[in-house]
Amino acid sequence: MTFHASDILIRQARKDDLPALVAMFAADALGGHGDTNDPEAFPDYVRAFDVIEASPDQTLYIADRGGEVVGTLQTMVTTSLTGRGSSSMIIEAVQTRVDMRGQGIGAAMIEFAIAEAKGRGIRRVQLTSNALRKDAHRFYERLGFKPSHLGFKMALK
Amino acid sequence: MTFHASDILIRQARKDDLPALVAMFAADALGGHGDTNDPEAFPDYVRAFDVIEASPDQTLYIADRGGEVVGTLQTMVTTSLTGRGSSSMIIEAVQTRVDMRGQGIGAAMIEFAIAEAKGRGIRRVQLTSNALRKDAHRFYERLGFKPSHLGFKMALK
Repeated sequence: MTFHASDILIRQARKDDLPALVAMFAADALGGHGDTNDPEAFPDYVRAFDVIEASPDQTLYIADRGGEVVGTLQTMVTTSLTGRGSSSMIIEAVQTRVDMRGQGIGAAMIEFAIAEAKGRGIRRVQLTSNALRKDAHRFYERLGFKPSHLGFKMALK
Repeated sequence: MTFHASDILIRQARKDDLPALVAMFAADALGGHGDTNDPEAFPDYVRAFDVIEASPDQTLYIADRGGEVVGTLQTMVTTSLTGRGSSSMIIEAVQTRVDMRGQGIGAAMIEFAIAEAKGRGIRRVQLTSNALRKDAHRFYERLGFKPSHLGFKMALK
């Protein structure tokens, strides 16, 4: 499925989007995930892209404006026994290009994911957001999410 | 992989574990997910089990004590571009049978999942917990998790 909001097109990512995606993550100092445009790291991104593409549950999307990658998000559909065998969509790795923020691209991407979930009969959409990102929290609440849970993480090694 | 802690064995769930698993979820009034032992609902659980079993990313486990199902958890491995193409394990649907709580079964299941993640070279383990479940939060912090995120959810339809 693709999505148009004024001049924004959201579509599944292709391998030739990878350099722009990596540059976008590398420019996100706040994220602090150690992402880099260093060509030595590029094969790691290609490997991850291939894993995501091969997964029936995970999908990587990009937001395109005028032929440029201006945002990205990833979705994952999980099925569990609880709720009579219900499915949820987890939204991850939502990112808008630094110079493109405040223009509704993030909202368009989240609304796209919600529409995708509804189209597949999924009953819940969920995501986690760093506890320090208060403006992101207001953003998600405006879109209709409830901060009903705590997100616990543990780094390994 | 299987795991033994004193007398607890953790292993992948089989289809013949389903009645015990459904009974465990149905007995969890707090969870409030509408689970039921009603035979009419059973095909929904079978369908969900089949989806989980077919997924390369998702795995459903049970904790067995003396041949009885006394707990369950589900894991999902996600790969993203961020963090140079890193993988995370999401732990979901952690449940200990009502009459078996306070005996270390939950901790054994979480430690099993962490060991699984380490064994696969996964760099992060994460989960969300209802904001009202303060005792669960203390439990996860004791096991080494940090409540660094907020978990946002939205019910659809």
